[in-house]
Amino acid sequence: MDARIDRLQRAAAESERVVELGGGLPAADLFPRSELASSFLAVLYEPACAALQYGWPEGDPDVRAWIAARLRARGAPVAAGDVIVTSGAQQAVSIAVDRLAAPGRSVGLDRETYPAALDLIRAKGGRAATGKDPPDWFYVMPGVTNPTGAGMTAERRAAILASGVPVIADEAYAELRFDGAVPRPFLADARDRTWHVGTLSKTLSPGLRVGWLLPPPGELAAALEAKRARDLEAGNLSQAVVRSFLARDDFDARLAAARTFYRARAETLVDLLRRHLPGWHFREPEGGFSVFVETDVRGDDVAFLEHATRQGVNFDPGRMFRPGGAPAFVSMRLCFSRASSTELAEGVRRLERAARTFRTGVPAETRATP
Amino acid sequence: MDARIDRLQRAAAESERVVELGGGLPAADLFPRSELASSFLAVLYEPACAALQYGWPEGDPDVRAWIAARLRARGAPVAAGDVIVTSGAQQAVSIAVDRLAAPGRSVGLDRETYPAALDLIRAKGGRAATGKDPPDWFYVMPGVTNPTGAGMTAERRAAILASGVPVIADEAYAELRFDGAVPRPFLADARDRTWHVGTLSKTLSPGLRVGWLLPPPGELAAALEAKRARDLEAGNLSQAVVRSFLARDDFDARLAAARTFYRARAETLVDLLRRHLPGWHFREPEGGFSVFVETDVRGDDVAFLEHATRQGVNFDPGRMFRPGGAPAFVSMRLCFSRASSTELAEGVRRLERAARTFRTGVPAETRATP
Repeated sequence: MDARIDRLQRAAAESERVVELGGGLPAADLFPRSELASSFLAVLYEPACAALQYGWPEGDPDVRAWIAARLRARGAPVAAGDVIVTSGAQQAVSIAVDRLAAPGRSVGLDRETYPAALDLIRAKGGRAATGKDPPDWFYVMPGVTNPTGAGMTAERRAAILASGVPVIADEAYAELRFDGAVPRPFLADARDRTWHVGTLSKTLSPGLRVGWLLPPPGELAAALEAKRARDLEAGNLSQAVVRSFLARDDFDARLAAARTFYRARAETLVDLLRRHLPGWHFREPEGGFSVFVETDVRGDDVAFLEHATRQGVNFDPGRMFRPGGAPAFVSMRLCFSRASSTELAEGVRRLERAARTFRTGVPAETRATP
Repeated sequence: MDARIDRLQRAAAESERVVELGGGLPAADLFPRSELASSFLAVLYEPACAALQYGWPEGDPDVRAWIAARLRARGAPVAAGDVIVTSGAQQAVSIAVDRLAAPGRSVGLDRETYPAALDLIRAKGGRAATGKDPPDWFYVMPGVTNPTGAGMTAERRAAILASGVPVIADEAYAELRFDGAVPRPFLADARDRTWHVGTLSKTLSPGLRVGWLLPPPGELAAALEAKRARDLEAGNLSQAVVRSFLARDDFDARLAAARTFYRARAETLVDLLRRHLPGWHFREPEGGFSVFVETDVRGDDVAFLEHATRQGVNFDPGRMFRPGGAPAFVSMRLCFSRASSTELAEGVRRLERAARTFRTGVPAETRATP
């Protein structure tokens, strides 16, 4: 994580004045507070109170069974025993990258992708594959890519499957495709080399830290040992709450409602951008929490973030999502997920003002007047 | 983790018939269920519902402040900003070992110590220091060592401080000294090279996964980056529950009650062992959850575990706690923490029977009769 970006985002989060379009957080409106409260009370008064005790590194059997059943329904030949419950999707990605990335080994990535995956790959000395060499492995987000909200084309999917190399398939946002057409999991077609990653952080709550990893069968024992070495187990309390919650919840109805909710916010942001910033280009998202924008603002994206924050709006600088860093024009992730229509309108108005007043690399306010 | 031991312990956990003296789990009797329930409800209905949202990698500010204040009260010059809330003590140890262990680097250890720390050190190619070479760093559990329940002598403490090398001071059990004389933290005397580790897993609940790490100041930024890379952050829900709980709890009174509770169980086990297994030797624990026993049973400790499990009792084989592996006589960790007096009595009775019927390396039941 770039220290300057971290500092700016923390300042924005602390300020009441800033409309936050960065961060990729789910909408608090969708948290099922009372249902989670009931689940908590239920598990706390179970006789053995397993929720507060140590568990096993692979996780709660019922939660694992639920994860496996949902994947089976999508065509993947998996069982509860194939699932490791992880402390969020990040831990799952981290365990998989640890195994796949190494100095000199090249990884196939989307043009823009999840920043923390890039950090993990860099930390292991891995490098992004160029057009010239076939990748040694892939990290992709089928269904919905963060930050673009794009799905994966059939051609790319076929090419990745044909490559025969390992794939981390990070489905963090896959179930939040607005059309509900969650694609067939890579697991279903490449079981022996897919590291499947999922999470409840986007669909239920990130505060629970419940994600999952299904490694290739030959890697399961080592992955479980890695999980144990890192933090023994995912939180038993969270897992128990999730277990109790899922037993009573209509999760598909929840997903359908979330899709409708986020789709409306996405449409609002897309309309606002087209209307107020017609020189900015983006691809309409197919799902997820964000739009990735190529602006006509020339200069450093972090300098522009600093400037925009002073105008009362933030975003995630494009360089975070790109293996190669920042190009000549500013790009950015704009998250519509937790901003109301009013906030989105005000945020875009401020972005427009920021773009108008920004001078390459030098915030307008600090330039000496001649 | 040895696969045979893992298999045996899982079978024991699943059997109603086995008195479990392995595992190192806290007593469910001490979980403050209704207070945690109130805390959960309180944080769930806070307006922004931060408990269910993403947080920062360093953790909840109030939880960090509480941790720092308790360490300051013990003489350590630390502030909330020095604390990283981790996903249990295991993650804290793992981050610290990652930084300190390396092929060829020797670590000073207690004769018996925390098995998962040994696993982490081995995985990084580290090695235990012998009497001949001064260690490159230390991993110790001041106050209460797991599995022996022993405190640290003043001489050893002075020698470690005089060595000038980095120290992981794992205080997982330190506050559970039966005499309440929690020693001055290493942080107070070697701030610049102490990796301080603590947790609520033994004193409140392991299901919360709330531990902490205070790295040396020069290592804080890198450790925080490591924390973020591993799982973004400790569970916000757990941290919010803890924050709300601690604001209302008399934690010192809770510790005092826990010490009385565990001391009584320790005394029961010690008495039973002296009475029924006078040939077994151990040091009376000063705190914690367990006794470490050197038996007069000759043979393989895992074979003896298998035999004992058939007799309806389990334990943790001594080899788990020793860098050098298993010696000629069986040793074991016996946990009194979650067994009632009746269970302890029955467990010791079965251990005695197991010892009587065990033949070196070959469980009695399976020997061919001549």
